[in-house]
Amino acid sequence: MHKVYYGYETFLADTKQLTKKIEWEFDAIIAIARGGLSLAHLLGEYYDLRAVYSINTIGYDDTQKLDSVKVFNPPQLQDARSVLIVDDIVDSGDTLVEVLKVLGEAYPHVTFKTASLFYKKSAKIAPNWYVKEAEAWIEFFWVEDIKRKT
Amino acid sequence: MHKVYYGYETFLADTKQLTKKIEWEFDAIIAIARGGLSLAHLLGEYYDLRAVYSINTIGYDDTQKLDSVKVFNPPQLQDARSVLIVDDIVDSGDTLVEVLKVLGEAYPHVTFKTASLFYKKSAKIAPNWYVKEAEAWIEFFWVEDIKRKT
Repeated sequence: MHKVYYGYETFLADTKQLTKKIEWEFDAIIAIARGGLSLAHLLGEYYDLRAVYSINTIGYDDTQKLDSVKVFNPPQLQDARSVLIVDDIVDSGDTLVEVLKVLGEAYPHVTFKTASLFYKKSAKIAPNWYVKEAEAWIEFFWVEDIKRKT
Repeated sequence: MHKVYYGYETFLADTKQLTKKIEWEFDAIIAIARGGLSLAHLLGEYYDLRAVYSINTIGYDDTQKLDSVKVFNPPQLQDARSVLIVDDIVDSGDTLVEVLKVLGEAYPHVTFKTASLFYKKSAKIAPNWYVKEAEAWIEFFWVEDIKRKT
């Protein structure tokens, strides 16, 4: 699979694009860490929401069940009604499915919707809103730039 | 107070600078949301740490005690030993003092250290590591860029 560098300026343009697609009012944003952190940061500023949270996941191989995902550090959402969950890419969809399951069970009164920059057609779940289909391996600037020497 | 725009490229260079200053090994990073989210994202990638968490604060005026800060959504740190807390700027220091207090009481077995991009000399607490002294009002790119029309 070929690689495509995804720089800050493209990310910024895509995040603006995403805000045009999201026709929904929400009162909190949850970033799936790490990938969704920068996106959640900009969206929090754009929508002027201080309620920007994160959630963590670990994928692991299990002899019984391959590609399991464990979710931890869910935020407190007692006072929330509508929450946008964001990630950089919905790839297999395993992470998003499990995050929605855990949060939905913990907070049945909350409506959750999802947004990402990239979405792979082969994923088992589609986000409510996304900007681009991923047809290559995306080299995100937050991974690449900080490791570059100069 | 004059304003200084703080763009992505400067942020990237400063974050690299910060990694050169931090001579300490840690097993988790906590971003103080929202300001610390992008910094924590890059640092998590740089140190190859999946344990990148966030914590939330609200500042409020109280008739009894001005400039109170309430801390919520602390991450689970049972398995952590050394944790780096990051924020974009240590301004009054109120937020950092309160975050350290809450986390220190909840996790007395953990060593917490702190890092920020900017630090104001008048703050009541200095981070362990910082890159620049703030002598102007910093217009961070994550605030400015996403709101710009074009």
